[in-house]
Amino acid sequence: MRTQWVELGERSYPIYIGDGVLEQGLLDRHLVADRALLVSNETVAPLYAERLAAPGCEVQSVILADGERHKTLQTCEQVYDALIDGRLDRSATVIALGGGVVGDLAGFCAATYQRGVGYIQVPTTLLAQVDSSVGGKTGVNHPRGKNMIGAFHQPRAVVADTGVLATLPEREYSAGLAEVVKYGLIRDRAFFDWLEGHVEALRRRDPEALAHAVAESCRNKAEVVAADEREAGERALLNLGHTFGHAIETYTDYSSWLHGEAVAVGMVMAARMSVRLGWLPREGLDRTTALLEAFGLPTRPPAIPEARFRELMSVDKKNRGGQLRLVLLRDIGDAVVTSEFAAEALTATLLEAV
Amino acid sequence: MRTQWVELGERSYPIYIGDGVLEQGLLDRHLVADRALLVSNETVAPLYAERLAAPGCEVQSVILADGERHKTLQTCEQVYDALIDGRLDRSATVIALGGGVVGDLAGFCAATYQRGVGYIQVPTTLLAQVDSSVGGKTGVNHPRGKNMIGAFHQPRAVVADTGVLATLPEREYSAGLAEVVKYGLIRDRAFFDWLEGHVEALRRRDPEALAHAVAESCRNKAEVVAADEREAGERALLNLGHTFGHAIETYTDYSSWLHGEAVAVGMVMAARMSVRLGWLPREGLDRTTALLEAFGLPTRPPAIPEARFRELMSVDKKNRGGQLRLVLLRDIGDAVVTSEFAAEALTATLLEAV
Repeated sequence: MRTQWVELGERSYPIYIGDGVLEQGLLDRHLVADRALLVSNETVAPLYAERLAAPGCEVQSVILADGERHKTLQTCEQVYDALIDGRLDRSATVIALGGGVVGDLAGFCAATYQRGVGYIQVPTTLLAQVDSSVGGKTGVNHPRGKNMIGAFHQPRAVVADTGVLATLPEREYSAGLAEVVKYGLIRDRAFFDWLEGHVEALRRRDPEALAHAVAESCRNKAEVVAADEREAGERALLNLGHTFGHAIETYTDYSSWLHGEAVAVGMVMAARMSVRLGWLPREGLDRTTALLEAFGLPTRPPAIPEARFRELMSVDKKNRGGQLRLVLLRDIGDAVVTSEFAAEALTATLLEAV
Repeated sequence: MRTQWVELGERSYPIYIGDGVLEQGLLDRHLVADRALLVSNETVAPLYAERLAAPGCEVQSVILADGERHKTLQTCEQVYDALIDGRLDRSATVIALGGGVVGDLAGFCAATYQRGVGYIQVPTTLLAQVDSSVGGKTGVNHPRGKNMIGAFHQPRAVVADTGVLATLPEREYSAGLAEVVKYGLIRDRAFFDWLEGHVEALRRRDPEALAHAVAESCRNKAEVVAADEREAGERALLNLGHTFGHAIETYTDYSSWLHGEAVAVGMVMAARMSVRLGWLPREGLDRTTALLEAFGLPTRPPAIPEARFRELMSVDKKNRGGQLRLVLLRDIGDAVVTSEFAAEALTATLLEAV
């Protein structure tokens, strides 16, 4: 087992990474009272809920419908009802078992139930293990914008069992690799190189390669979060590809594209725009596209009219004073967040999507 | 104008108190971008919204239905919709103009929109000026518990115009005085004595007496919040009378009792229970009852079966590990929060309510 700490003073917490960590009784270390609520979905709960048994703690559960379109305030009400029905008070713990949707939603409920109770993330998808479960961003979607309603609320611990990834559907596994590639692109060129050299090992989910990829991703994420918990600066770099990607997800009603797939396309769009601006060498775009394709990810956007694409991007949380801000690349391993770019470069990039 | 600071490091903020402060352009000092959303209700907006004009800032508005029963997640959706429709981004400001319902709900929306935007409280009731607008507690009700969904999120400023209290309906004005009396009871015996000596002046809303009562209440609240922002200890004392009071409000579906009225009864119940326990001299109970009655407040609970009363109290946010915690009195000006009390004293107090 590898343990990566997210250093946030008295709110610091560990990420436990490894094959089988789900069954190592790690939850017990982080449950402060004798009541907890397990939040999971109908797909994941039957597979793993029983393995999580926390002796000495009465764990009730609420099982939600599976899918991004259920990441809404309405679904939160099911969790609030379960918390109140179970008479869980401020000392109780919420355990989020599932992918990013479960983690973000359960985390938001924990952030807002009685003005905040503790929670533990138990991510079961690659995407959740390397990204959404770490860093305390919680939230739900609004019909007109992803994660528009949310809170910063750090978990007490993250338990990332890489063993559960063996049975993840191919498409979801690939989607998770998009966020892994992202860390290489924004701040870790050596990791990007390593990924290029381990495409085959990762595609066949070699346990050692997988544990390394998850641990390195978590290390990068933990460093960024420790430096900028509330996204006043550097943390915005983690949104590489996300402004384009969120627009794609919203346009397609969160139904046909997985988040990681939309992010993969978004990263290629950001890279393409960066090349247009003369910031990124063409080779950087080619290597990015090739690596994402090697991981089975899409690299071209669906047909979205330019005006609509722009409108969907305009509600992004990074925007300030009505100005669009984007994460762009200066090189592999070197990203910037900026609203200072030639407007034509964006227009041309969006027009390619039609 | 009096200015009372709430000292919370870099999140410190001023409370401006006085007759006419609404029209002194104070908002402008605290708006960081050129867009804001005014949240108010159909009763208050026609009276004061125009006076708030902030030159240089485009202020959109959303007007909610009036009343505690609208303090729900469903009403929040109207605010989120207005924020997104207005393309307000993270630099925008929410302005809450109204009583406690508007302030708590708008504050919660500000806490959770894009994971947190700034807000300014402009309380227009006595209760909101002396209590709910100060200290960063935001939230909405769940059908089975008051303020069960919420967040700690400090405002950027509070603008408390005591002039607007002149036209407050008598019943609402009295309800606000209950929270004023509370500060005397829990930590400020001199203020309690002063209140006893100024009953007539306060009943006729003498501007000088009123400004003093609001300012002293805000000073007490600011001191408690600065010492214990997240209610790890001392802040729980501010809940004197609230566990009983919330039960009354929930039982009556937030419709027939005003919050302050329920708190007045709750404080008398807490005092009565404290006398039973031998903690509070009988004279303390009598003075409390007399002062509240002099302010036109109820001091006897409605008929609620004991088992139901207990059940309603069991969802209180102060409870830990299933144990009921109550704020009780050792003297006027000296309160404790504890779960260490003889069960019979509570039972007898609740039985009096039938």
